[in-house]
Amino acid sequence: MKKIILQLFVLSLFSSAAFSQNSKTEIDEKVAELLSKMTIEEKIGQMTQITVTNFEEKGKPGVFDMVKLREAIQNYHIGSILNVPNPGAPTIQRWKEVITIINNESNKTRLKIPVLYGIDAIHGSSYTLGATLFPQQIGMAATFNTDLVKRGAEISAYETRASSIPWVFSPDLDLPRNPAWSRTWESFGEDAYLSAQMGVAMVEGFEGNDVGSKYHVASCMKHFIGYGSTTTGKDRTPSIIPERILRQYDLTIYQAAIKAGSKSIMISSGEINGTPVHASKHLITDILKKELGFQGVVVTDWKDIIYLYTRHKVAENNRDAVKTSVMAGIDMSMVPEDYTFYNDLLDLVNKGEVPVSRIDDAVSRILKMKFEVNLFENNIADLKDYPKFGSQEFIDVAYNSAAESITLLKNKNEILPLNKTGKILVTGPTANSMKSLNGGWTYTWQGENADVLAADKFTILEALQNKIGKANVLYTKGADLAIEDELEIQKAVELAKEASTIILCLGEKNYTETPGDISNLFISQSQIKLALALSKLNKPIVLVLNEGRPRLISDFEDKMNAVIQCYLPGNEGARALVDILYGDVNPSGRLTYNYPRHPNSLEKYNRKYTESLGDEEQNDDAQYEKSYSPQFEFGTGLSYTTFEYSNLRIDKPEINNTDNITVTVEVKNTGKTAGKEAVLLYLSDKVASITPEVKALKRFTKINLAPAETKTVSFTLNQKDLQFVDNDLKWVAENGTFKIQIGTLSKEFVLK
Amino acid sequence: MKKIILQLFVLSLFSSAAFSQNSKTEIDEKVAELLSKMTIEEKIGQMTQITVTNFEEKGKPGVFDMVKLREAIQNYHIGSILNVPNPGAPTIQRWKEVITIINNESNKTRLKIPVLYGIDAIHGSSYTLGATLFPQQIGMAATFNTDLVKRGAEISAYETRASSIPWVFSPDLDLPRNPAWSRTWESFGEDAYLSAQMGVAMVEGFEGNDVGSKYHVASCMKHFIGYGSTTTGKDRTPSIIPERILRQYDLTIYQAAIKAGSKSIMISSGEINGTPVHASKHLITDILKKELGFQGVVVTDWKDIIYLYTRHKVAENNRDAVKTSVMAGIDMSMVPEDYTFYNDLLDLVNKGEVPVSRIDDAVSRILKMKFEVNLFENNIADLKDYPKFGSQEFIDVAYNSAAESITLLKNKNEILPLNKTGKILVTGPTANSMKSLNGGWTYTWQGENADVLAADKFTILEALQNKIGKANVLYTKGADLAIEDELEIQKAVELAKEASTIILCLGEKNYTETPGDISNLFISQSQIKLALALSKLNKPIVLVLNEGRPRLISDFEDKMNAVIQCYLPGNEGARALVDILYGDVNPSGRLTYNYPRHPNSLEKYNRKYTESLGDEEQNDDAQYEKSYSPQFEFGTGLSYTTFEYSNLRIDKPEINNTDNITVTVEVKNTGKTAGKEAVLLYLSDKVASITPEVKALKRFTKINLAPAETKTVSFTLNQKDLQFVDNDLKWVAENGTFKIQIGTLSKEFVLK
Repeated sequence: MKKIILQLFVLSLFSSAAFSQNSKTEIDEKVAELLSKMTIEEKIGQMTQITVTNFEEKGKPGVFDMVKLREAIQNYHIGSILNVPNPGAPTIQRWKEVITIINNESNKTRLKIPVLYGIDAIHGSSYTLGATLFPQQIGMAATFNTDLVKRGAEISAYETRASSIPWVFSPDLDLPRNPAWSRTWESFGEDAYLSAQMGVAMVEGFEGNDVGSKYHVASCMKHFIGYGSTTTGKDRTPSIIPERILRQYDLTIYQAAIKAGSKSIMISSGEINGTPVHASKHLITDILKKELGFQGVVVTDWKDIIYLYTRHKVAENNRDAVKTSVMAGIDMSMVPEDYTFYNDLLDLVNKGEVPVSRIDDAVSRILKMKFEVNLFENNIADLKDYPKFGSQEFIDVAYNSAAESITLLKNKNEILPLNKTGKILVTGPTANSMKSLNGGWTYTWQGENADVLAADKFTILEALQNKIGKANVLYTKGADLAIEDELEIQKAVELAKEASTIILCLGEKNYTETPGDISNLFISQSQIKLALALSKLNKPIVLVLNEGRPRLISDFEDKMNAVIQCYLPGNEGARALVDILYGDVNPSGRLTYNYPRHPNSLEKYNRKYTESLGDEEQNDDAQYEKSYSPQFEFGTGLSYTTFEYSNLRIDKPEINNTDNITVTVEVKNTGKTAGKEAVLLYLSDKVASITPEVKALKRFTKINLAPAETKTVSFTLNQKDLQFVDNDLKWVAENGTFKIQIGTLSKEFVLK
Repeated sequence: MKKIILQLFVLSLFSSAAFSQNSKTEIDEKVAELLSKMTIEEKIGQMTQITVTNFEEKGKPGVFDMVKLREAIQNYHIGSILNVPNPGAPTIQRWKEVITIINNESNKTRLKIPVLYGIDAIHGSSYTLGATLFPQQIGMAATFNTDLVKRGAEISAYETRASSIPWVFSPDLDLPRNPAWSRTWESFGEDAYLSAQMGVAMVEGFEGNDVGSKYHVASCMKHFIGYGSTTTGKDRTPSIIPERILRQYDLTIYQAAIKAGSKSIMISSGEINGTPVHASKHLITDILKKELGFQGVVVTDWKDIIYLYTRHKVAENNRDAVKTSVMAGIDMSMVPEDYTFYNDLLDLVNKGEVPVSRIDDAVSRILKMKFEVNLFENNIADLKDYPKFGSQEFIDVAYNSAAESITLLKNKNEILPLNKTGKILVTGPTANSMKSLNGGWTYTWQGENADVLAADKFTILEALQNKIGKANVLYTKGADLAIEDELEIQKAVELAKEASTIILCLGEKNYTETPGDISNLFISQSQIKLALALSKLNKPIVLVLNEGRPRLISDFEDKMNAVIQCYLPGNEGARALVDILYGDVNPSGRLTYNYPRHPNSLEKYNRKYTESLGDEEQNDDAQYEKSYSPQFEFGTGLSYTTFEYSNLRIDKPEINNTDNITVTVEVKNTGKTAGKEAVLLYLSDKVASITPEVKALKRFTKINLAPAETKTVSFTLNQKDLQFVDNDLKWVAENGTFKIQIGTLSKEFVLK
């Protein structure tokens, strides 16, 4: 196997040291000029980010304590504020007031540097009342439609700027390796290529061609790096990721988003192989800033410098933690509740333990972003500029996103779509909940107020009532999400006897981060019992999953006639779901992770061959249970029509080490309904010096086909697509045979 | 934190190249002389190991096909044979016949090099009928008694030599990171230090002072390296272990056993970070042979060179696989069913693709081991030399091992020991099974014939009947291990009404390797239902666990009055268990792994701080379930007496970077019963540049105390104990505070 070693990263042109030496743009000149006027205190202030609730009057949530705010901006020169003033979910008018108050204070400072406000706008401008709320990322990914994802981010940018905020902590580029992780739903799923494509689409949507315009915001890639891979699945616990693997998967996602221009990046709260990322000069400075040439702002996650000594125990005290993280390459500290970072960093610089050059690098990046988002001139929204905020046009995009994300996993005997005339029972703890539809980061951190704040939106129950009339919809909760309740089950069973079909809505509470930790991937016992009780009636059951991560349903899945995954589809999700249930929308989502069947069998779709031996190998030594058998595999997604793939062709059977290869396939809608189809191209390297994946997604596209319509889809693969990272951390392709798979078709070619 | 960098391995004196240049021992001279006479075919034959059943007549299991045997030895010059002739579990007489037939053939060869026979003698000479069968390794480790472990290996060596076999594939030095792994019970548990100490004891027991004597055998450390760490817990699936972590934990175990003199090593069937270990020159040649200076034989595991192309897909074909693995450093191939290795390697050498020097290195190692085990003169056992085979003396050691291994995990209201006068119900699928007591590698690979072949030994039921009389013992199976059976549960419930106490025996079938794979760590539903049904009677229940790995019992553990883990205690295990149940033996085993409570919460005892935040940290941001809460923690083990620890002292509060530190503690038996106590010393590094473990076992000893007796235990820690492997792969200690914990006492000292 001759190795063709290619340069790892062509982007490694800019080092942080070289940054100020490059041909200066206008912004660079402004940055340099401003920087030259700043005191060390003003510089360190720029690197300090404080939560807005710190400035509230004691006992008066939502009311600024002007002494505290002034102290922060005047005395500590803070550069950034984040988060939401109490009581949460401000209107755009209220946001304008808040930002204006802050802006007034920064205008009184010596250099009048505006404060950069950052916000967790995760699925739309999700901390603003009345904003358009999209499916969470895991659903957006399931659309396999980058146009929709980009459009969603554009709308989110528009509505965030309408809230007078120029910076969002999004997209999430985490790659969850343990599906139990509480932020699985904030990611694009388990595939790095898909995540990269979706991440790029979001960055483009957020930042547009002019991030300084009043309709665009700076994005923040998060959480660099390896955050989603904790061994136990618990949030903010250790990850084990060799650098080879980090480079082959996780890093490619960031590389793509950086290339797309993302202005900032948030560091992972995790530790990889015993090193907290916030303490890793290797990851932040050597790889991110130097090798990838990232020139934007590196911000910590919540309190993560403090946690270096209180949790990770790699620092003796806060001062030690500040030194370690700043020298690792941190530009801004989300402190966020005190001035320990400011005080300790000032002392470190004054004592020569942190060089001013490092401070200047950090502050230059921060000022640059402030200029780029046009903060000096475009700081407060003129609300007249935002007539589309929360408009029907935007809502329709959110609805379309939900409609393309919802994934039909099983449809035995084509029980779906349902007939509108029958009486149904809708039951289950997620059937009448805006909280479950939205999940965390909705109006508040944990999303606990969605039922009140999105009361004008429709739950699944309400959407069903709207669709077929209240008289045809029976409802009882059936089960609590956690607490077992035999009486409620009995109520559901009794009601079910009157219904021709049962819509069973199961899932999870709203959660994010550590409060979402679980130790058992099975869906709750209270829900399993409801499902089993209903299944005894021999009535058709449509299981609607409304969950952030794949909770195990293997105890009863075989008793369900249809299974439909709606993820966390957001405020318009129930309408989209119900339209799919009744055939007014043809489903086209595909699963972006392997849905496990068993708690201790969490294999990924792009597993190695040893994880799924064929029958021949199994019988070789002994009979044993096949270990690889997910409940539903990555890419699963049914339609109400049928698509036939044919005529898979490649433009050459052999290529050399500079050739591209073009793949075409014909896709025909052979059913009676128009439908959208995500066409997925997988590649397999048949033999490689690093054990090859059974298959890996390399390209996808989403097409729309009328009945009997045929389209030819064309993909071009390049050399990078054939490569993997070897033990020397180089991207290499090795000569030999590769297999392309699209649908059930496959074709081989040889790299010579 | 000043780093004190010490040399990683002082042993790195010998490289394979340097091997023949060192001052030659007598054996080295014999090896060189013999090697010089050999043809390349004879050399490659030495590297070839074939399974004995290959030489059986078709349709006549157990009968040699002399043509096939002759072909192997005369034409292919094979150097080694392994495994068991049909129909399994030969007597020592039968073994003598078998080895004699083989020996007669090798005596007819040109150079009369004897065939080296290797056997999976795992817990005693477990493939020989009538041999003394000990607890499996996981139980031996739980004794925390290295003397017992060494004595067990001595007896195993004695009985293996009595079987005319000079080489055992033991000890197992794997470090299971996923408790679902099917070979967890073949290991010493989750701690590297404990595994190293136990591994050394076994090597010393097997090999003695003279491995060539008729009472000792060559050991084989297995499975180098990282085999027990598959991500999903499935056997022979990928592991992810960064080299830093591999060095800090796994490698230290091998290093200790190599230092103890182990003659051979078996390579892991797994792949680490995408590289199958059989293909890793870095691990086998650079680290094992060069850095650790290992001079013994490196043998593959079953068929693992073939699997490089059929399963791992890192080789195009067998020839490619042979080249890769031999050049990686493999000395002997457990082919084991054909001559593909021989043929392909011969061709590779003839074509200059594998240098003769590599062959000579391999064959020298093999010949050296043959001389060392005295194979040229001591090949066939004289049975008169083995009067103690299967003797009461040996059986007593196996009994004592079981008695010290069995671990009392819970004893609510001191329900144990039981009163001998009450009537009991014993029930559960493992209550009357020699198979469950022994597990795999017992007479046969999977151990399926133990009930027949160990019929003279006692099951738990039989041992109970012997103890308190048949009239006092009610029995019904209660449940199958797998299949739910409501009628059997009802039978058990009915019988239980007549009993004062229920002994509920739950566990697992016999298994090893891939047939033991599971996807769900919960104990089987059939057993959970039995436990829950019995618990409704409000009778005291003693749960006896008889299992190779910690199957989850959290569904009913709170309803059990006592829990006692007997692991796979072997043929004498039931007697030991029953003696403990009735107080004739005071339990003293300690758990060598964290027994998980939940399927997706598999934290190790030596976790990092982020895995078990204190209450203060938890309340900091939000209330959430504590994630670290094993059902029983590593080290758990109750006694019928009480021990009081006091007066923990260290000889100095500050040390420098060359000092040792001596720790003493007084342990008093404050109860009314004599008892053994495993005293465990844990160390914590309070701050380190690699996130420190919450605690790590550094020393242990087992003491015996009469009532009211006090002993002072002394441990000496050295600099190595303070070190960890840093990101440069160097062992370093960092200045700062360390905490020593013994029992509930702790003491801090400072490294300056």
